[in-house]
Amino acid sequence: MNNALPIGATIGILGGGQLGRMLAVAAARLGLKVHIFEPSANPPAGDVAHRVTTASYEDHAALTAFGQSVDVITYEFENIPTSALDLLETLAPIHPGRQALATSQDRLIEKTFLQGLGLQTAPFADVPDMAALDVAIASIGAPAILKTRRMGYDGKGQSRIKTAQDAPRALADMAEAPAILEGFVNFTHEVSVIGARGQDGSVACYDPGENVHQDGILRTTKVPANLTASQRTDAVLIAARILNALDYVGVMGVELFVTPQGLIVNEIAPRVHNSGHWTQNGCTICQFEQHIRAVAGWPLGDGSRHADVIMENLIGNDMDRLGDYAKTDAAIHLYGKAEVKPGRKMGHVNRIFRA
Amino acid sequence: MNNALPIGATIGILGGGQLGRMLAVAAARLGLKVHIFEPSANPPAGDVAHRVTTASYEDHAALTAFGQSVDVITYEFENIPTSALDLLETLAPIHPGRQALATSQDRLIEKTFLQGLGLQTAPFADVPDMAALDVAIASIGAPAILKTRRMGYDGKGQSRIKTAQDAPRALADMAEAPAILEGFVNFTHEVSVIGARGQDGSVACYDPGENVHQDGILRTTKVPANLTASQRTDAVLIAARILNALDYVGVMGVELFVTPQGLIVNEIAPRVHNSGHWTQNGCTICQFEQHIRAVAGWPLGDGSRHADVIMENLIGNDMDRLGDYAKTDAAIHLYGKAEVKPGRKMGHVNRIFRA
Repeated sequence: MNNALPIGATIGILGGGQLGRMLAVAAARLGLKVHIFEPSANPPAGDVAHRVTTASYEDHAALTAFGQSVDVITYEFENIPTSALDLLETLAPIHPGRQALATSQDRLIEKTFLQGLGLQTAPFADVPDMAALDVAIASIGAPAILKTRRMGYDGKGQSRIKTAQDAPRALADMAEAPAILEGFVNFTHEVSVIGARGQDGSVACYDPGENVHQDGILRTTKVPANLTASQRTDAVLIAARILNALDYVGVMGVELFVTPQGLIVNEIAPRVHNSGHWTQNGCTICQFEQHIRAVAGWPLGDGSRHADVIMENLIGNDMDRLGDYAKTDAAIHLYGKAEVKPGRKMGHVNRIFRA
Repeated sequence: MNNALPIGATIGILGGGQLGRMLAVAAARLGLKVHIFEPSANPPAGDVAHRVTTASYEDHAALTAFGQSVDVITYEFENIPTSALDLLETLAPIHPGRQALATSQDRLIEKTFLQGLGLQTAPFADVPDMAALDVAIASIGAPAILKTRRMGYDGKGQSRIKTAQDAPRALADMAEAPAILEGFVNFTHEVSVIGARGQDGSVACYDPGENVHQDGILRTTKVPANLTASQRTDAVLIAARILNALDYVGVMGVELFVTPQGLIVNEIAPRVHNSGHWTQNGCTICQFEQHIRAVAGWPLGDGSRHADVIMENLIGNDMDRLGDYAKTDAAIHLYGKAEVKPGRKMGHVNRIFRA
């Protein structure tokens, strides 16, 4: 394996939540050590990591020590401060790369990039000011939704525009952050493709999953998705086109709306993705190991699906049903979070169905 | 789940090798923390454990602190000093229990126990002294093998007796340790059953695997094993009988010789077992999670097999072939051991075949 990290090498992971935790387990399976960088104390990934640094992304001394201790850097979330990335990239390779991060961190850049690849997106327009918003509403129509270009956490930074009269209030909601107007897409359902690309340029995509959200949080993913054979092929080709265009290394989640006019790209996430958790029990090599293989320079593994799966997130008080799930033949995956809170992802369950 | 350990509870594991490492990952998946107790520094399990204590089994202060910090205790090897167990059992429940340990630690007690259950074993006789050895050879015949009753590591404490003339030299090899004479069994192949028993008394056994050893070390395990349907049933019933008789909690490995006269029990191991590593990729719930579920008081999980598997150990320089394996659709499991040594188990590979 040319360029592959040797056994015992260390992967640095920015973020110590459940995605970092499951990445850490996958890395251990391949004989690699993990160093987690996370501002919060006692992160879920800490239980299964070789080493944890608890420090903020503004702590450049801590970032430097972290960067010097690892052989490659990856991350579990895309909103990493640019200053931290600027420092870290001088110390170790970062995968997926800066282009993928820059693209997915900004809705305007993301949608412009996707359209440049000939892919369909929701109609959108840049909204630097009130005049631009008026033009955008005239062009895209209402209802529409005004969003900050850079993502906020927990769905903040979004404002609905039912009619043109809502425009001033919506722009005020942005608090002067650069914004983008998006038109609504009339879709029947959402699917996602979890794709991977190795350092050798090889691409492997998992079978698309069908997602159901509730209150803005992913509730279930089901494979196979409700797609025709040609839609399934389209979905995988779209993901592969994005991966190649970004010279991507690692796993990416690509969310797609299914419409009578074809598949429309909703958004891309440059990381392992909640809608790919089914791969832990439906495939030999799960998305977490696939990501580690890619960032470590290993060949990608076998991502073929050997079962139908319904993945259900355990959110907040869903944990009350844990005892019931434990009695079934489902596979349970918990994140080791001490406190149950409403809306908090505590774990997930994969129910497996074989033909 | 009555009596089940709650999320966030801590499982203490005696031994930090690869079995402890894979148990720790399974515990994390169920939201449980792991505290490893291991005399050697930097044990393989340390990379994926919440906490590690590095201390000897004679260090009663360290044992006490360990025992007080955990909710239940289990182990990855059976030769735990009795004095350590005496201390630990006053601090937390130990699963599998003392009866299973006492039985498997002593070949004479083990074989007597198995025969008491109506199971077939190799012919054997207690050899407290030279007079007893002469009687035993007259009864069992030669060739035969003299073994210390309590297991030594790495195959020590065994001496072959080709003819009666070898008896004095063989007894001298025992260095005055209590011994047992075992007759040879004429078997066609070896299989093993990985069985589990929960705290509620429920039993679940994995499909038997067929084992090939080389130089006294397990080389491969293949499922399905070469067994008739009735032999397969017998194998599972034998394991279940042993589990119930010991009021066992956890996973046990039962090694069986296949002979024209039926299945002969070779030995039992009161722990997860190398010949059960195939379950990581052949079943939804692997032997490691099954063991954690049992010792944590959870219901047992689904151990049904969804693929044919050949597990191959990576021993010593087998690691040179790692790059080749990484290019195939096999699943790789490495133990994070820094140094390759001849005869050292570095990892294993599961090759999966679907009908």
